[in-house]
Amino acid sequence: MDEFSVVGKAVPRVDSRDKVTGVAIFTADIELPGMLIGKILRSPLPHAKIRDIDVSGARDCPGVLSVVTGRDTLGQKYGRVSSADEYGLAVDKVRYIGDEVAAVAAVSEEAAEKALELIEVDYEEQEALPDIGAATKEGAPAIHCDVPGNISYVADFGWGDVDAGFEEAEYIREDSFWTQAQIHASLEPHAAVARYNGSELTVWSCTQGPYHFRRDLAKLLGIAEGNIRVIKPTVGGGFGGKREVLSSDFCAALLAIKTRRPVKIVYSRYEEFIASRQRHPMKITLKTGVNNNGTVVAKECTLYADGGAYNSRGPGVIQYAGTSLASLYRIPNIRFKGLHVYTNKPVGGAMRGYGSLQLRFADESQMDIIANDLGLDPINFRLLNAVKEGDETASGRVITSCGFEECLKGVARAIGRVSEADTVSAGCRVGIGIAANDYVSGLRSIEPYDSSTVIIKTNRDGSVDLLSGTAEIGQGSDTMLAQVAAEELGIALENVKVYTGDTRVTPPDLGSYASRVTFVAGNAAVLAARDVKRQLFEELSSMTGISEGTFEVRGGEVRAGNANGSYRASFAEAVQTVLDDSGQSIVGHASYDASSERVDYETGSGNPAPSYSYGVQAAKVEVDPDMGTVRVLRVIAVTDCGRVLNPICVEGQAQGSIVCGMGMALYEDRLLKGGRTMNASFLDYMVPTALEVPEIMLEFADTIDPEGPFGAKGVSEGFQVPIAPAIANAVYDAIGVRIKELPITPEKIINGLAECEKEARRD
Amino acid sequence: MDEFSVVGKAVPRVDSRDKVTGVAIFTADIELPGMLIGKILRSPLPHAKIRDIDVSGARDCPGVLSVVTGRDTLGQKYGRVSSADEYGLAVDKVRYIGDEVAAVAAVSEEAAEKALELIEVDYEEQEALPDIGAATKEGAPAIHCDVPGNISYVADFGWGDVDAGFEEAEYIREDSFWTQAQIHASLEPHAAVARYNGSELTVWSCTQGPYHFRRDLAKLLGIAEGNIRVIKPTVGGGFGGKREVLSSDFCAALLAIKTRRPVKIVYSRYEEFIASRQRHPMKITLKTGVNNNGTVVAKECTLYADGGAYNSRGPGVIQYAGTSLASLYRIPNIRFKGLHVYTNKPVGGAMRGYGSLQLRFADESQMDIIANDLGLDPINFRLLNAVKEGDETASGRVITSCGFEECLKGVARAIGRVSEADTVSAGCRVGIGIAANDYVSGLRSIEPYDSSTVIIKTNRDGSVDLLSGTAEIGQGSDTMLAQVAAEELGIALENVKVYTGDTRVTPPDLGSYASRVTFVAGNAAVLAARDVKRQLFEELSSMTGISEGTFEVRGGEVRAGNANGSYRASFAEAVQTVLDDSGQSIVGHASYDASSERVDYETGSGNPAPSYSYGVQAAKVEVDPDMGTVRVLRVIAVTDCGRVLNPICVEGQAQGSIVCGMGMALYEDRLLKGGRTMNASFLDYMVPTALEVPEIMLEFADTIDPEGPFGAKGVSEGFQVPIAPAIANAVYDAIGVRIKELPITPEKIINGLAECEKEARRD
Repeated sequence: MDEFSVVGKAVPRVDSRDKVTGVAIFTADIELPGMLIGKILRSPLPHAKIRDIDVSGARDCPGVLSVVTGRDTLGQKYGRVSSADEYGLAVDKVRYIGDEVAAVAAVSEEAAEKALELIEVDYEEQEALPDIGAATKEGAPAIHCDVPGNISYVADFGWGDVDAGFEEAEYIREDSFWTQAQIHASLEPHAAVARYNGSELTVWSCTQGPYHFRRDLAKLLGIAEGNIRVIKPTVGGGFGGKREVLSSDFCAALLAIKTRRPVKIVYSRYEEFIASRQRHPMKITLKTGVNNNGTVVAKECTLYADGGAYNSRGPGVIQYAGTSLASLYRIPNIRFKGLHVYTNKPVGGAMRGYGSLQLRFADESQMDIIANDLGLDPINFRLLNAVKEGDETASGRVITSCGFEECLKGVARAIGRVSEADTVSAGCRVGIGIAANDYVSGLRSIEPYDSSTVIIKTNRDGSVDLLSGTAEIGQGSDTMLAQVAAEELGIALENVKVYTGDTRVTPPDLGSYASRVTFVAGNAAVLAARDVKRQLFEELSSMTGISEGTFEVRGGEVRAGNANGSYRASFAEAVQTVLDDSGQSIVGHASYDASSERVDYETGSGNPAPSYSYGVQAAKVEVDPDMGTVRVLRVIAVTDCGRVLNPICVEGQAQGSIVCGMGMALYEDRLLKGGRTMNASFLDYMVPTALEVPEIMLEFADTIDPEGPFGAKGVSEGFQVPIAPAIANAVYDAIGVRIKELPITPEKIINGLAECEKEARRD
Repeated sequence: MDEFSVVGKAVPRVDSRDKVTGVAIFTADIELPGMLIGKILRSPLPHAKIRDIDVSGARDCPGVLSVVTGRDTLGQKYGRVSSADEYGLAVDKVRYIGDEVAAVAAVSEEAAEKALELIEVDYEEQEALPDIGAATKEGAPAIHCDVPGNISYVADFGWGDVDAGFEEAEYIREDSFWTQAQIHASLEPHAAVARYNGSELTVWSCTQGPYHFRRDLAKLLGIAEGNIRVIKPTVGGGFGGKREVLSSDFCAALLAIKTRRPVKIVYSRYEEFIASRQRHPMKITLKTGVNNNGTVVAKECTLYADGGAYNSRGPGVIQYAGTSLASLYRIPNIRFKGLHVYTNKPVGGAMRGYGSLQLRFADESQMDIIANDLGLDPINFRLLNAVKEGDETASGRVITSCGFEECLKGVARAIGRVSEADTVSAGCRVGIGIAANDYVSGLRSIEPYDSSTVIIKTNRDGSVDLLSGTAEIGQGSDTMLAQVAAEELGIALENVKVYTGDTRVTPPDLGSYASRVTFVAGNAAVLAARDVKRQLFEELSSMTGISEGTFEVRGGEVRAGNANGSYRASFAEAVQTVLDDSGQSIVGHASYDASSERVDYETGSGNPAPSYSYGVQAAKVEVDPDMGTVRVLRVIAVTDCGRVLNPICVEGQAQGSIVCGMGMALYEDRLLKGGRTMNASFLDYMVPTALEVPEIMLEFADTIDPEGPFGAKGVSEGFQVPIAPAIANAVYDAIGVRIKELPITPEKIINGLAECEKEARRD
């Protein structure tokens, strides 16, 4: 690592000081003169027509400045063009308990809440469809009138000849798996502040992508993009849940437009549970054909995603799950059918892992089942089928750097090293399971490009300011940008100040999703830093007569030398010299567009990312056969994310993702009754706490990506993908019970053990 | 004007909507979580040593979080390196009533004020020096111990051989003139909000130059410039009074550092009167030698500036006054001596007109006296001596574009046209006077360069964002930047959004002073727009095969065509095409450095600006010989500011400056008694109101500057310079009384008339 001075070092995050001193401003902290508080009225019914809304009582309520309903909107729908189906405020119909019906702006929270009580909505209740079964049953009412049958999207694609593949297979098995709804549980709830001057709108929002947010809001409000400024203050976690414009944003903007006063809306924790996006519950049926030598030759998958009331990112999630079938193992023949089903439930959307998480739970569980069936070592079985550097997968992904094999071998070695390390509780049985994942570093999906642009301006004291349209949402991207720019510029980390996520001043960027920021924005930052050096060296060369090519910066010092003489000055002096001599303040900028291609909407084919990360995790668990409880003792994660730019940032990502994945594996489950969320609080909805966190061992493959910034690849989402199947496989290893439905509750363990006993008795 | 679509048009200001809808946020509007209120304890004595300060009572006061005195500072001094003499908080001594002694931060204004009362200062009173006479008298105590005699700066320079010039002269006369202190009277008082995270400081302040502000604050606080972010919110007027870091800024920052909580300090109107900068009172003695043909051959000037307690910009003001002796008329032999005198009074600093205003009052009054003496028409006398295009003045100024002659002739014609236009009150006598001015468009003084840098980033909807470190302080510079960028880019004005004055994100700029922004930042904006077009055309050319040179944008449309085909698309489509094709978001940037040279500190020689503006004003007044009152009926201003970029913006500048100059001519006078300001409110200090505003006729010379953006030059300050001497000359024309001391009060008129009568009787 000695070749670098900033990259690869465990430097503290550049935003940590603001956060620990309380200086950081979150959206909810914003106060503006004359600001009003907005509140949203939500549907109490899972499915109903709206006959009439009487807002007169609310309008007359003291302190209330505006009451808006769907009638006050342009009737534009949210979402991606191909699947937009949701209004900012309900028009004619509500489709889940929590659906937005009206919004008010008032001088105080109390006045706003009082006004909500005075809005009278005349509902005509409809039959509610609580699940995929009810929604897809013959004669079920349509939740959206233009989607009879309630299936709003079908992905139907494949590669190779799956029938021939199964013909060839010497072993075939089919299993079905179920995953539950998971809440993002960001510590910061959704919040927005909007301000309007009659022509220009400013919105502060905790968005993961200010530019896409602006594009969507512009469409909903009929305001030109250039007339909207979106500012992302400090954000307390996103995890995919802050990818979209939500009603908080839309209603704050609409009320600001109506009242011409600033309006703030902050979701309560209850609203956060019922009315923000959630991870799609899925039913995944997998049929896999294997040769006797262990080669997987065919795979068929049918996936039902319970989308809840609206599409949101559902189609994208399903498509990504489908293409993930072909991405981790060399499988020549694949068929995928994925269906998005409307139900009268809260809405599924993007969440860390984006469809591959559910798919890998099914697929990596089944890989374990097959290995068991065939008597193969689960690591060797995976090694046999693993994709390798230089592969082009069936779906067209081009594998450049690939440390998957190394991860598998690393996990095997680590398991051996720690096999005796953990103290097991009395009466518990221990098991170890492994599972693997891959993940994109960027995703060319929404736009024809997958690019970021970075501007770096220099200050005469030798510090630089880096402007980027990315969104630091807690993942550490500001630190990554500062590190790669400092390294490339040859200056100290503290001399790079990062400002991100403000559409008026930071250049265009697609935002934080698909683990793209390090690869795409990181590369743009490196190129912008090179642009700074190019100009600096050009100027210094013309001033000194020393040839440009001999200049370099290292350790904050600019050096050059050839036959014409030599130059040596601090970076600050060099910048000041150019300024004094020519009045020029050097500004560097660059766009980086990922070398990828858009996945074809119909065929699922394409190479959507410039590179792919890999990981293998082993979970060591103890299962209490009497209580049915599962405790994770240790997680070993060996990861290929290219060069590790910052060990502590990656460790933070690993801990957060693995523990969040453990929540899905063991604890978290949004429970509904009659469409109503029954556990909409942190008391009732069980996210893992510090008590549940196991020993997490991290190792890294020694991969240097040829294209990533200093060899790095994306790392944020992949960590969350394999932990649930690794735990399920470990539970099987411990007690012989195969759990195919998440979460792995004590009840399922006890039932499973009873079933095993019954079968043993039967045998 | 048809060659342009945006430039030259009377478009509304781009910031007007925010201001009239109340959306604009001034510094005082800022609210941050946990914010404290800061207040400053000021000296009640004009001159005293501080024996001791006991802050224990204040520290114990409920709600008080910090109390700071000079002991809590680094002991660094404010101001330009060569003349820094002022502490952020008094160390050992106070030097005027209002001098800053201590500051407190508390949870409320009430608590802060209560705490101020509890600070006990043990003063040892010193003899106060109320004026230049007292301060320069033999044996006077030194206000600053390192400046015995209280003369802190002497400019002593000249050109040609002034003794030989007076030898040659056939007519010589000497007069002395006095000008008073004038208050900037910005509607927004000084305000600052500071926030500190233990390493980085953010300061919101109503500064005219965020970058210089940052540099000065960094020095005072011992924090690296890169660790300070200065943000200029909306500013309600500066006029030179917001050029410097004041105690509001310093104390807010210091208290934020001490408390680690945000601190806001807003000056009261009273503080604004006594403790912000003011226009220097001056005594100017002019000796002028003229040939019989009317050619001025020699001029000698001695100038005393009453600086009050500290230097502030005094030396610069004096130097600029001195170099102005050589700038308007072709005078070969000049000698100047200018002295800055400390007194125990509020502090003189930069103010619109910057020394040339006082100098021109003297010089243009004396030009009128001489014309009268010699029986010359005042316009012809000036025409005879006026500088012309291509001149190099005695002090080394290079006159590029020059419409001075045209202005003189234009005023003469206009006077003729309107001679009967005004209704004169019964019993009043009418007079017309003229006076002239020149003014720099930029000033290479503080730094070796006089440059601005502009960044323009493009959005896919065809709008662009322009980033500049300039400071819109009410003068219209944001609108100017938007206009010149829109014109150069060939797009509509509303598609250019301007963001300025934030050191973290806007590129370096020296700020708003010396009427430099239009010329310097305007040129940078034009060059940055060209850089955008260059890149756009390059990309489009490589995509279409059409040669780059044939591309142009006009009316929001990009067009190109040659033998290889043609291209036609909206600017938005073109930007989007490049983005879709290459992922590139085009960013343009440029620095512009004025083609000027730094004035030599010792000799006063040099060409400090890239161009010079000119103006001639005629004032028509009526004088009531019984009441002594003067009413300005009409002002005719003919101005050479190069191309008029926006007629209504220039008209706004003209009205503001002329009326402010009338205030100095007739009404405004800061009155002191025992060092205490006796009229420190808008009730007692007479700024002109709408009732006093005369008919103002504006005309423009048909000058197009060869270097200015679209031919424009600076226009803001010059308008204020000639109005006072024009009124004084008009009063003389009306009643034969020559007032040499401003303001022209009824008392002086009555006394002057009595004197005339006495002399008439004597004859």
